Amino acid sequence: MIVVMASGASKQEINHVIDRLEGLGFRIHLSEGVEKTIIGAIGDKTRLNEIALEAMPGVEKVVPILQPYKLVSREFKTHDSVVKVGDLEFGGSQIHVMAGPCAVESREQVLETAEEVSRAGATILRGGAFKPRTSPYAFQGLEEDGLKILAEARERTGLKIVTEVVDPRTVELVARYADILQIGARNMQNFFLLKEVATADKPVVLKRGPSATIEEWLMAAEYLMSGGNYNVILCERGIRTFESYLRNTLDLSAVPVAKHLSHLPVIVDPSHATGKWKFIRPMAMAAIAAGADGLLIEVHPNPAQALCDGPQSLTPENFSALMNDIKKVADVMGRFI
Amino acid sequence: MIVVMASGASKQEINHVIDRLEGLGFRIHLSEGVEKTIIGAIGDKTRLNEIALEAMPGVEKVVPILQPYKLVSREFKTHDSVVKVGDLEFGGSQIHVMAGPCAVESREQVLETAEEVSRAGATILRGGAFKPRTSPYAFQGLEEDGLKILAEARERTGLKIVTEVVDPRTVELVARYADILQIGARNMQNFFLLKEVATADKPVVLKRGPSATIEEWLMAAEYLMSGGNYNVILCERGIRTFESYLRNTLDLSAVPVAKHLSHLPVIVDPSHATGKWKFIRPMAMAAIAAGADGLLIEVHPNPAQALCDGPQSLTPENFSALMNDIKKVADVMGRFI
Amino acid sequence: MIVVMASGASKQEINHVIDRLEGLGFRIHLSEGVEKTIIGAIGDKTRLNEIALEAMPGVEKVVPILQPYKLVSREFKTHDSVVKVGDLEFGGSQIHVMAGPCAVESREQVLETAEEVSRAGATILRGGAFKPRTSPYAFQGLEEDGLKILAEARERTGLKIVTEVVDPRTVELVARYADILQIGARNMQNFFLLKEVATADKPVVLKRGPSATIEEWLMAAEYLMSGGNYNVILCERGIRTFESYLRNTLDLSAVPVAKHLSHLPVIVDPSHATGKWKFIRPMAMAAIAAGADGLLIEVHPNPAQALCDGPQSLTPENFSALMNDIKKVADVMGRFI
Amino acid sequence: MIVVMASGASKQEINHVIDRLEGLGFRIHLSEGVEKTIIGAIGDKTRLNEIALEAMPGVEKVVPILQPYKLVSREFKTHDSVVKVGDLEFGGSQIHVMAGPCAVESREQVLETAEEVSRAGATILRGGAFKPRTSPYAFQGLEEDGLKILAEARERTGLKIVTEVVDPRTVELVARYADILQIGARNMQNFFLLKEVATADKPVVLKRGPSATIEEWLMAAEYLMSGGNYNVILCERGIRTFESYLRNTLDLSAVPVAKHLSHLPVIVDPSHATGKWKFIRPMAMAAIAAGADGLLIEVHPNPAQALCDGPQSLTPENFSALMNDIKKVADVMGRFI
Repeated sequence: MIVVMASGASKQEINHVIDRLEGLGFRIHLSEGVEKTIIGAIGDKTRLNEIALEAMPGVEKVVPILQPYKLVSREFKTHDSVVKVGDLEFGGSQIHVMAGPCAVESREQVLETAEEVSRAGATILRGGAFKPRTSPYAFQGLEEDGLKILAEARERTGLKIVTEVVDPRTVELVARYADILQIGARNMQNFFLLKEVATADKPVVLKRGPSATIEEWLMAAEYLMSGGNYNVILCERGIRTFESYLRNTLDLSAVPVAKHLSHLPVIVDPSHATGKWKFIRPMAMAAIAAGADGLLIEVHPNPAQALCDGPQSLTPENFSALMNDIKKVADVMGRFI
Repeated sequence: MIVVMASGASKQEINHVIDRLEGLGFRIHLSEGVEKTIIGAIGDKTRLNEIALEAMPGVEKVVPILQPYKLVSREFKTHDSVVKVGDLEFGGSQIHVMAGPCAVESREQVLETAEEVSRAGATILRGGAFKPRTSPYAFQGLEEDGLKILAEARERTGLKIVTEVVDPRTVELVARYADILQIGARNMQNFFLLKEVATADKPVVLKRGPSATIEEWLMAAEYLMSGGNYNVILCERGIRTFESYLRNTLDLSAVPVAKHLSHLPVIVDPSHATGKWKFIRPMAMAAIAAGADGLLIEVHPNPAQALCDGPQSLTPENFSALMNDIKKVADVMGRFI
Repeated sequence: MIVVMASGASKQEINHVIDRLEGLGFRIHLSEGVEKTIIGAIGDKTRLNEIALEAMPGVEKVVPILQPYKLVSREFKTHDSVVKVGDLEFGGSQIHVMAGPCAVESREQVLETAEEVSRAGATILRGGAFKPRTSPYAFQGLEEDGLKILAEARERTGLKIVTEVVDPRTVELVARYADILQIGARNMQNFFLLKEVATADKPVVLKRGPSATIEEWLMAAEYLMSGGNYNVILCERGIRTFESYLRNTLDLSAVPVAKHLSHLPVIVDPSHATGKWKFIRPMAMAAIAAGADGLLIEVHPNPAQALCDGPQSLTPENFSALMNDIKKVADVMGRFI
Repeated sequence: MIVVMASGASKQEINHVIDRLEGLGFRIHLSEGVEKTIIGAIGDKTRLNEIALEAMPGVEKVVPILQPYKLVSREFKTHDSVVKVGDLEFGGSQIHVMAGPCAVESREQVLETAEEVSRAGATILRGGAFKPRTSPYAFQGLEEDGLKILAEARERTGLKIVTEVVDPRTVELVARYADILQIGARNMQNFFLLKEVATADKPVVLKRGPSATIEEWLMAAEYLMSGGNYNVILCERGIRTFESYLRNTLDLSAVPVAKHLSHLPVIVDPSHATGKWKFIRPMAMAAIAAGADGLLIEVHPNPAQALCDGPQSLTPENFSALMNDIKKVADVMGRFI
């Protein structure tokens, strides 16, 4: 960490900062410039949270040098993590596609979709039983009945199940049915939910918050790992910008950046990012070409009747065509689907 | 609601949309332009969530005309709401200042701060007992012990207590001690927490999420009101932008806009928005001049020793000077503190 | 266009708006709802700029239905435009790569780079002779001497030349040497430069401004087309967001969106977007997979000595390896490089 | 400047960086940590532009410690600059209000507005003769005829004139008529225009670009000052964010921040920021309370007939009422209007 003292900071103020840092076990390097004095501090980065250096008199700014996360970093683990979901491996040479409806609406809808996406090559079925909705007047999900429908679809098709957890009180319930727990974008910094999921014995898909930096996303993953759950799959799903034609701006550079800073697998959700089904195909192709380890795609047998996010759902036919296209890109990347 | 059909939409596609809307009880106005056909639909806006119009063939876009919220809107209630906290009134001619430390750290710290801010004219004491922190390695709060300290400070000073709720499982516990429940910025769309707080018999300070639109903020308030809790105080605390000198960009125009669209009182938190105590004074002055009904300000007896957010905390002396300044602005606004 | 009247707008106010619109030749559809009255207006969209409807009493908001651009739109021309640069075609099945240094620094640097990128398969040489720099103390370019060096490189390699125009006073000078004029991101809304370039007899690469919406980008293209220059190539180069690890956030969804709304070819500049050479390869691959018609890539024989943007420049070796990789993606897309 | 070397950087790479910096005259401080080596470099910051340190092998990132600007900084000049416009002083205890129409439309319109705003207490008349417009089909200004009208209004009222320069070719023409040259938000980084204006013998209002950081804004001011024009008045006019209810988000914290980092006066334009006249009053009040040295406000005798930006224009009556209100806030600030 570098502490930049204000021009005009007194000798006493500088010494005060040094004493503070040394008291916490940091080793100090002092650089006295013409205009400013700079204090370099080397030591245990997790102790930085204990001090409010910027509040000390004479301090202009504090520049962190090391990332605030540890377990998720490439420094902690240099080679790529492979997250196992039963016999499936995320982060290896196989690219996995998670597909299914936004919300579990009925047994027929889910079973039909499961059959279709399985036939097209998806390995995981997605579907929400608890729906966090912007409007209190919108459909809120079938809850445990929805989870049972997903479990039945797994029985029939062999697909694994990924579904969202939204409330610390129901994590255990959801974990009884799901193969992968999903933490939604708006819950990325719901730290009490993260702590609960950290104790569950299930892999987790952690969506990036729509206005989270990559560093904050990795810090949320650190919550899961420091709580004991090392099976974290990161998911980019679009960020909020001033551009408004699509729902969000898919930040595909987050894929190579997250894989550069961290050892965790990264998947992409082009459905929520674009919000319009016509743009899912090019963004799914691009995601694979950018190095994504998987995709999360909304498929609905009848998008115009969907209770949630119909405009961004593919029909089974469109999904099947998409799978053919992305297989070719995976091949160029030396991977397979 | 206006449905804009794509150029080239067929007669059949247009009729399909009309049938769908009429089936849901909407009244239809059809405008056939040279380039595009436009369908106006008038009816119960809360039913719009049931339909995925943009997924229907031939539909280019859907333009909502009415706001998606109802109970928080000026249409629902034309005059300003006054939220009562015991004998205090938010939204009337008195401007209330909530002050205190970011986190409850010790009995001494809280009692000392409470005395000081009370003497300077604050009417409410703030302090966090449960702390949602970006880093799992940072101080997480004193929990119920912290709540007890706040209650003792209330006994001694007569100040009301505002403190954050972070987990649906502890809302009831917090409500036992607090006068006002605070929903933090990152929990603004934690809908399961909102639903729980909606059933609590306490006023709520609802912070705007750092990347929430004003409309989404009002929708979160709608969750509280539609769940039965009408005592909602909105709080602007800065939004995330590309500008990085300060922690966030305080959006003071949100004050008159939220008061234009809604009848709820609006307060401002310049401490979190700026993240640097030097900028709190001008932004607090500006907030009152923009029409805010109150302020939320961090005060700590020794900012450089604070376990949380020291750099943005005022000393009791600075806070006292600030109170003198904002009283003059309040006077210009025809209000008092 | 839809005019939404405020709840409580008087009959007289509504009639006033209708009179105004009818006076300008618009055809009117009136929808009187329970809460609000809506006026639909159909007519010549270019006349909308003449009226300040939102300033009229009783008007709540105005919702445009048609895009504000005409010549760049898919409605104006349904099939893809192919922009010719000598014998090269942009927007056809060949994908073109423009490569070269950020700035022309010396004859040797440019000639060496030109040979290398030509050998690797680039068809166009890029290089700035006039450099718009954030700092007045930074290298500002070789000006006409730089243009002469670029022309010599063209002689030797057969590469076409793309270079930036920055000032209406030097457009003619630059056009004497260049095959393609580039309008930089920060000049996207320099309307007096656009008007001058519109009269030049050269194709134009129009970069999207770092905080421009796609609609504003297309409006800038409309300036060029309405001024007589139909040979416009759009270039996405990253937008400014709160995410700060990379220089900008490359908005690859802008590629399919711009091609959906417009008939113009779209290329991508991953060098400026990422600002770090390590991330250029995945983003270039992704750009082709998203449907881009070309790439603009910085190559420098010795990035660490570059006077401008060294950190984002590829060495000739890395560029050559990249070309091999993107050829495979182009092949999957049914295109070639 | 701090150079952070990647973990695993070789001794040779570290020495290479040190040699490079010492060769440019920098003094070096080396800190070898367990995980990373950090190189501190002290020297002439304007030489940093000559080196592409981040492109050197083994370098992870470069952290600037000093601001990139010099002449605009508080280090260069510790006390507030006062910019003189004839007998008026910007940055002293008087707050100046610049008022008038967005565009000069006719002699009658300008003369009437000038009389009205002068009577209400404005000291400067604004009005655009050259209009940079997003749409090529919109009204583009009366050009020199407009300037003549403004000059006539000055004759009659004694108001000073501020008007926008948009093209380096017409700076001299505009400077012949205007008292203050305005650089519009979209031209903030039109460096060739800045260089031309730097040589004009007139004070300049420099608007912040809608997506410019405060640092970039100050760098644009540095262009003017390093080119010889020290009479720069900064103007905050709203930034682009995801919030879309108002045209832009007025960043009032930019006022104290710019005044903290720089010695230049800062004014605020609430008209462009909000885009809706109803919100101008609270934001103008807040701007004064935040410490602004002046305001720029659109006034039009008949907003609904304005050729440009009618919805954000005040009527003369509303403007007059506003002046009364802000005088009271100025008084609280120990200033006058």
